[in-house]
Amino acid sequence: MGHAFVQCLQDSGFRGRLYPVNPAGGEIRGLPVYRRLSDIPGRVDYVISCIPARLTPQLVRDSAAKGARVVSFFTAGYSESGRREGREMEDELLRAARAAGVRLLGPNCLGLYCPETGLSFAADFPKDKGGVAFIAQSGGNSIYLIRTAGRRGVRFSKAVSYGNACDVSECDLMEYFITDSDTTMVAAYIEGIRDARRFRRVLQRLAAAKPVIILKGGSTPGGAVAASSHTGSLAGQDESWEGLLRQTRAIRVHDLDEMADMLVALSFPGHPRGRRVAVFGSNGGFSVLTADDFIRAGFELPQLDPPWQQRLHEAVARFSRSDAGMILKNPFDITNIASAEGLQAAMKTMADSGCFDLMVAQLSISNSGWPFVDSPFTAWPGIFVDALLAVHRETGRPTAVILHSITHPVELERFGALQQKCQSAGLPVYDSIPRAVLALDRLVRHNANHPA
Amino acid sequence: MGHAFVQCLQDSGFRGRLYPVNPAGGEIRGLPVYRRLSDIPGRVDYVISCIPARLTPQLVRDSAAKGARVVSFFTAGYSESGRREGREMEDELLRAARAAGVRLLGPNCLGLYCPETGLSFAADFPKDKGGVAFIAQSGGNSIYLIRTAGRRGVRFSKAVSYGNACDVSECDLMEYFITDSDTTMVAAYIEGIRDARRFRRVLQRLAAAKPVIILKGGSTPGGAVAASSHTGSLAGQDESWEGLLRQTRAIRVHDLDEMADMLVALSFPGHPRGRRVAVFGSNGGFSVLTADDFIRAGFELPQLDPPWQQRLHEAVARFSRSDAGMILKNPFDITNIASAEGLQAAMKTMADSGCFDLMVAQLSISNSGWPFVDSPFTAWPGIFVDALLAVHRETGRPTAVILHSITHPVELERFGALQQKCQSAGLPVYDSIPRAVLALDRLVRHNANHPA
Repeated sequence: MGHAFVQCLQDSGFRGRLYPVNPAGGEIRGLPVYRRLSDIPGRVDYVISCIPARLTPQLVRDSAAKGARVVSFFTAGYSESGRREGREMEDELLRAARAAGVRLLGPNCLGLYCPETGLSFAADFPKDKGGVAFIAQSGGNSIYLIRTAGRRGVRFSKAVSYGNACDVSECDLMEYFITDSDTTMVAAYIEGIRDARRFRRVLQRLAAAKPVIILKGGSTPGGAVAASSHTGSLAGQDESWEGLLRQTRAIRVHDLDEMADMLVALSFPGHPRGRRVAVFGSNGGFSVLTADDFIRAGFELPQLDPPWQQRLHEAVARFSRSDAGMILKNPFDITNIASAEGLQAAMKTMADSGCFDLMVAQLSISNSGWPFVDSPFTAWPGIFVDALLAVHRETGRPTAVILHSITHPVELERFGALQQKCQSAGLPVYDSIPRAVLALDRLVRHNANHPA
Repeated sequence: MGHAFVQCLQDSGFRGRLYPVNPAGGEIRGLPVYRRLSDIPGRVDYVISCIPARLTPQLVRDSAAKGARVVSFFTAGYSESGRREGREMEDELLRAARAAGVRLLGPNCLGLYCPETGLSFAADFPKDKGGVAFIAQSGGNSIYLIRTAGRRGVRFSKAVSYGNACDVSECDLMEYFITDSDTTMVAAYIEGIRDARRFRRVLQRLAAAKPVIILKGGSTPGGAVAASSHTGSLAGQDESWEGLLRQTRAIRVHDLDEMADMLVALSFPGHPRGRRVAVFGSNGGFSVLTADDFIRAGFELPQLDPPWQQRLHEAVARFSRSDAGMILKNPFDITNIASAEGLQAAMKTMADSGCFDLMVAQLSISNSGWPFVDSPFTAWPGIFVDALLAVHRETGRPTAVILHSITHPVELERFGALQQKCQSAGLPVYDSIPRAVLALDRLVRHNANHPA
């Protein structure tokens, strides 16, 4: 495991010095391996441990002797084991740390991701920093969330996989992020808390200062069993969490994809100021289903005012032989406008009308390439996106993009290219209609609760 | 468009003769193009039309003269246009068909997919047949559903994209499937119905005979506007649909992915006979969240009886240096069992215990390759799946597989390979934890309502 950490740090462009330590000595990826911590020349700031649990109290003392302020423990086998020896070992570790004056991350965690310094626990995390702080008791969940949100244009100030939280806890981290000027919003995957009163106070202050998104794991009896075995957490009653999150106006999500959606919704500029949505894009059936989802979530899909409706018909007549197979009402199906100019004229009419608080473009990736071979249809999504970006540049209207219905690696590549294009232009991209609607609803609710 | 249909039919291996018709003549993909329908030598069974709407009544008469029984109209611009001329044209078309004694599919539809004859409207649909009949008013939704469910191992008897349903309706099709011996279950995307009483009668008989899955589009006022412009449908009240579907015990789903999940759940053998679930797989955080989702849906995650729990510990002790970082309770996190034998021993213990009605393997595709480079971890999912299939072969326990958390085309390829392996062995594969739980819950409810 030590090897994997070295590799991650090197490939992440870690900007500090890296000292592998292992009693066997040798070399890892061009770096000399020190046999003991004390052999390292000079001071050590931060230690990552993958050694067996029984050796860790001594490691804490050795780390303190070298000047380290924090030791992060990938090492597992503590309270989460459910065994007395494990709990006792965790207590001993904490006592050793307190006595030596160092702080502990974990144990049973992946530690820090901090793009500014190049600290990381996966080599493919974004190298540039942003405003999102993310904390999670689960290392696996951390990797997936950072990876998937990262691909979607979300950038992080710091992320912390903090495992069993025997010393540094969610409260410490959240308190830090209240005043951390690099951090504009906070997302947390939490299995259990140690100090409910302090947590309530800290969450209240944090949520008053910045948007907070919470995914509570172990919120059922079955999940709580798992949380206890996973990070030694006492998971607590779901009802009290629901009440607490409602009171503090933190945003509650139910899985990591919903969390990524919410980070996308909050991270990208151009939040809608109301619930009047224009849905437009490809395929009548998806237009119908998208409209249903928005209406069910409490959005409105108003129609264009008559003069603008007239203009839309004129634009379509100018650029298409007929309007057969299209829907020229909201939700608009403009699949059959084949030209960039025509698409741009149609979208510009919607944007200029002032009838909508939010433009939502929905595009089926799989269907837009009908049939599944190279054909005139294959090019259409690209033309559509170019028109969309041109209209957005010109009008600045709040716009969200849903690129959905992906069934094949080729389609995922196509999706990726369009996604990057939209994101680079500042537009949030979702990959599921229902999850997009959920995130946009939560965004509008959140902003209504927190007027700027 | 005619060209696209010819291409689809050729690439789908259509087993009949194909006659392109266009006044311009010439050749399409090696086939001579007839200038008029009447120039075709001999009888014609089935006609697909992409010609302008105003010419279609004559086409119906010409088709009848050549002996055709059905004409399928891709042609749009009828009642769905919302214009008087469109409605009148649709009426005229229907009158012409009735007078000539032919049946109409559509207009505004993609028509038939029938793997047995090679009729198809997308070249990549499965070439082999199965038991699922699918009907949809939307061509785009048809393409996506068949494509995505097809990749997931679902096979179709017939699928019909039937558009405006001016002649052949959902009632006609559903009635046909009641007795169609090739069809074991029916899925339908419906925007509107023309005869509510008949629909109720037919659905009642169909749902009593075979599982029926319904996705109702246009079930909100906003969606209804779209449905009317999409297929000229009167969408009806959502409440009455809810009641009707509950009464007839049809399975209601809310999007096409849920529909595909349900087809997967019903199509694959090994339905669970109860709600006692063993969840096992990778990553503690995902184990916690999977457990939460199952419990919330009304499943149980019982623990192993003590002797079996003992055996599990022994198996892990035999094959792993320690159990650190694992969860040896339900939900089981067995990521750290590195060997095939160890994984097999652990899974076999769960399967043999008799404590569970359903084995659920959950595997994070993105995380299992941690770090995102080739490493020992990259091979783990493959080893895990091989062990799973071996235990399933040996014990025959009902098993479902969730391969989730895909962020990259490379991961989707990895996913695809594992998915195919599981599906070939008869195991259903889901790509989302919450949607898998939803489908399995609906499956158990459906089977409880319809004892074999």
